[in-house]
Amino acid sequence: MYNQTELKDLVEKAIINLSYNTEAEKLIDPVKYILSIGGKRLRPVIALMACNLFNDKIDEAVVPAIGLEVFHNFTLVHDDIMDQAPMRRNFPTVHRKWNINQAVLSGDVMAFIANECFLQTPQRCLLKVFREFNKAAVQVCVGQQLDIDFEKATIIAHEEYLRMIELKTAVLVAAAVKIGAIIGGAKDRDAELIYEFGRNLGLSFQIQDDLLDTYGDSKVFGKIPGGDIISNKKTFLLVKAFELASREQLNVLHVQLSGKTQDPEEKVRKVIDIYDQLNIRSVTENLANEYIKTSFSLLDRIDVPKERKSELKSVVISLIGRNK
Amino acid sequence: MYNQTELKDLVEKAIINLSYNTEAEKLIDPVKYILSIGGKRLRPVIALMACNLFNDKIDEAVVPAIGLEVFHNFTLVHDDIMDQAPMRRNFPTVHRKWNINQAVLSGDVMAFIANECFLQTPQRCLLKVFREFNKAAVQVCVGQQLDIDFEKATIIAHEEYLRMIELKTAVLVAAAVKIGAIIGGAKDRDAELIYEFGRNLGLSFQIQDDLLDTYGDSKVFGKIPGGDIISNKKTFLLVKAFELASREQLNVLHVQLSGKTQDPEEKVRKVIDIYDQLNIRSVTENLANEYIKTSFSLLDRIDVPKERKSELKSVVISLIGRNK
Repeated sequence: MYNQTELKDLVEKAIINLSYNTEAEKLIDPVKYILSIGGKRLRPVIALMACNLFNDKIDEAVVPAIGLEVFHNFTLVHDDIMDQAPMRRNFPTVHRKWNINQAVLSGDVMAFIANECFLQTPQRCLLKVFREFNKAAVQVCVGQQLDIDFEKATIIAHEEYLRMIELKTAVLVAAAVKIGAIIGGAKDRDAELIYEFGRNLGLSFQIQDDLLDTYGDSKVFGKIPGGDIISNKKTFLLVKAFELASREQLNVLHVQLSGKTQDPEEKVRKVIDIYDQLNIRSVTENLANEYIKTSFSLLDRIDVPKERKSELKSVVISLIGRNK
Repeated sequence: MYNQTELKDLVEKAIINLSYNTEAEKLIDPVKYILSIGGKRLRPVIALMACNLFNDKIDEAVVPAIGLEVFHNFTLVHDDIMDQAPMRRNFPTVHRKWNINQAVLSGDVMAFIANECFLQTPQRCLLKVFREFNKAAVQVCVGQQLDIDFEKATIIAHEEYLRMIELKTAVLVAAAVKIGAIIGGAKDRDAELIYEFGRNLGLSFQIQDDLLDTYGDSKVFGKIPGGDIISNKKTFLLVKAFELASREQLNVLHVQLSGKTQDPEEKVRKVIDIYDQLNIRSVTENLANEYIKTSFSLLDRIDVPKERKSELKSVVISLIGRNK
């Protein structure tokens, strides 16, 4: 059994060893750049863990796992264009370091580099794995569309918000573990269970991201808390607050979000004040914990010895307690 | 044997019947739009012709052929962003009708819709077909990068220009016929021959596009001739003119391209004047004809009865004589 550190090392090495069509360096430089500035490598690591759950050999899953990371970074490059984001993981975004056209085109080629990775899946399960990946890829695009639409909408229901993050984030985590499991030789029932495990994990992960932005410890989290509030971002916290707020509280929220108050610190304080009145923090924490609990019980039901599940369990636990 | 009109009808019907994830209509509307505003459907039609060359049944090739068209239109949507093009086939481009973000995202989903089409290739040749498609897809991105780079370069050799259009245009035409042939059951040798046939056809097609823009009959071509000259576009004609020009002729070209002359009609006249002095039109026509000749001789060598080749031959002939 591989542990998380070993798997992350394996993933980093495989990313470095990716081979590219080198006829146009300008096309590939941004690809190497975005892949080199790190991140948790959550998707490939848990894909390999899921493979390792069913199989001691995981080498056949490495390249497809990298395909997940390349695809994920493709979405980041294009999302950052759409969000006009200047920074990503404390580095300039691709469209800032180069330009929008370069970010569109180098992003595009990443979609086909991801394909190349999935085409190296063992033939016995290639079609199954590729279909799983591609279904998730389409869903991620749908999720990004909903995200864009929601930013323009005045009010959205928390169910709509959850569906959006499910599509934008959770389905790729789910596909990652399912793909790893399929390559590892999991039976269909277990592959389904682990998909649901990943989906629940992805949901709780995103909801905790929302929590961290407002309630995270800035020293550990590495960002000033309240960024989402300052930028009027529709998070689970805000969506839920709009649902629960009284008429008076709604007024306060509308005034704060209207951009008419000048002081961002005051804005953050006043919005958090409403959150506190409505118990938003614990409502949100409870929901994240529900998803975690469900993912644990799904993991329990997978038909492999308990001791093989320790690494996936520890990932879930580290995500519960995470502060970055 | 199917003729060109029957195949185009088949392609149009299959495009209309494409099924989409309908959870976000805003994502899919631009996809339907760009696919509905027509074009020659060259890639899917010749893919089906190539299949029909080896097999009376072509139904298994229809969906993968549509994948080629979806991919091609994906590149058009993103290229139009990069070129800031306002119109495409006499309709507003996607980023003009919607906005840049929508064009990026709806373009992206088309890459995965194309994947979905290729995943419906018969299992016996799925891997071969998908690899062929994906190799071409990466090359098309490389070609677009070279195109961008060349627009900024002062001088490029005509060999570099030819390599760029080979990657940007010809390899997808080549992959189209090879994919059709593979699905039709062609032997490896014939699949290679038809790839080269398509590559040569694609090259001559693009060079004739360059010729038409300057020398085409505006009534039939549907555009005012000289558009490429007015916008300083690096075409085979211009690249070759720079290579052959004397010092004096170079001076004239530089002055005309510098944007210091005000009258576009005068610019077109003066540049064509240099082209005429250097015999650029016939040099270019000769090269296009060379590619056509090569593609004919490759088609001859393919191991199927002569009468089966008539449709592909007539496509080549219609491209030689085309005026739009």
